[in-house]
Amino acid sequence: MPLAEAALRAIESLLFEWARAIDEDRLEALADLLVEDGEYKVASRYNLDRGLPLAVIHTRSRAQLRDRIVSLRVANIYEAHHYRHLVSGVQVIGEEGGTYEVRANYAVIRIMEHDGSSAIFSSGQYRDRVLFEGGTPRFRRRHVVFDSKAIDTLLVYPL
Amino acid sequence: MPLAEAALRAIESLLFEWARAIDEDRLEALADLLVEDGEYKVASRYNLDRGLPLAVIHTRSRAQLRDRIVSLRVANIYEAHHYRHLVSGVQVIGEEGGTYEVRANYAVIRIMEHDGSSAIFSSGQYRDRVLFEGGTPRFRRRHVVFDSKAIDTLLVYPL
Amino acid sequence: MPLAEAALRAIESLLFEWARAIDEDRLEALADLLVEDGEYKVASRYNLDRGLPLAVIHTRSRAQLRDRIVSLRVANIYEAHHYRHLVSGVQVIGEEGGTYEVRANYAVIRIMEHDGSSAIFSSGQYRDRVLFEGGTPRFRRRHVVFDSKAIDTLLVYPL
Repeated sequence: MPLAEAALRAIESLLFEWARAIDEDRLEALADLLVEDGEYKVASRYNLDRGLPLAVIHTRSRAQLRDRIVSLRVANIYEAHHYRHLVSGVQVIGEEGGTYEVRANYAVIRIMEHDGSSAIFSSGQYRDRVLFEGGTPRFRRRHVVFDSKAIDTLLVYPL
Repeated sequence: MPLAEAALRAIESLLFEWARAIDEDRLEALADLLVEDGEYKVASRYNLDRGLPLAVIHTRSRAQLRDRIVSLRVANIYEAHHYRHLVSGVQVIGEEGGTYEVRANYAVIRIMEHDGSSAIFSSGQYRDRVLFEGGTPRFRRRHVVFDSKAIDTLLVYPL
Repeated sequence: MPLAEAALRAIESLLFEWARAIDEDRLEALADLLVEDGEYKVASRYNLDRGLPLAVIHTRSRAQLRDRIVSLRVANIYEAHHYRHLVSGVQVIGEEGGTYEVRANYAVIRIMEHDGSSAIFSSGQYRDRVLFEGGTPRFRRRHVVFDSKAIDTLLVYPL
């Protein structure tokens, strides 16, 4: 892999930053981790493996992701909870014209506020395309491919 | 981030070493990963978010942590079990006067000896301050912020 | 640790590649991650701690591991499922004559096809010996030491 260590670290850190922004309830910081017309999609492995188009979340720009976060903050009604991300196995598996193809696994533990109970809420794979803008890595595309067919109850926060 | 790759690796390895020492039942090795007057604290996110001072463990030096480990070895009565740590998303988020501010997520699986059953026992965030003493990184402060309000049964080992 | 960063990265990537090959159902790619006479063994911590020889899987070469994968593909009958690996805390803890002693923790989530249910199937430690052949790192020995005494139902895929 001719990829410089510093670039690899920066890509890894981008993935970790996304996870930490969600876990620390700084959802408004997510959009800046995408390029302007960056795509963010959450879909099941089951659907993807069969070419089925249905996605749970699908935004095609920073602005659309921001809208979704605003809506979540002001309009959604849900039980208070937060997430804890485990992200592992970050690998750069290809590069084309300055865009890096990246894979990683994740598991998200969901902790309910009212009783403190926690459980693995979702696991899956990140299939990302990352490019550098002025030295800063951003997602050109972030596809979250979750393992289960259906997500237990409403998916409130991004994964 | 102007932090040299070697320093980042060393910090990461310090966090992994802490986890492995616990999982391999080498608890006596933990104190040497702190600086002499290093602080180790385990408290809930719930309490921290509300400014509540209660902590499950709070030691303020290597010696205090050693005392706690000795007490655990000789005096505590508990069912035999061990931990398995998953640590992810290690990030250096700041630096001041040679002390690095570090964040990471963790999940701890607890395995009971008598029936081999296992479950996620705790998840949360490490909020660490790390400094280098003669080239060796050590914890100036290790705050374990766990996600649940209460820890199921007695917390026996450090997290 | 005098180990060059590039070598450490390559070792880490080897461990991640193993996990991803299983999770993406590319089991045939595993054998090439071993050296020709590389050993792959899956045994419980319980047995290992007591010097008991019983292993769930024990292959002593690439060819033996390939046989096992072929048998799994054509002969085994089992309910459809897949794995999701979380690998963390990769550490090189020693080196002798160009062979690196490596440790890492893992947890494997198993997702059943028929109902999409998922649970932690296995957790444990990888105890690996890695060497470089023409610049490519491969397992000389991969010991998977799982935490529970018994593995729930049949272990179908490698861990």
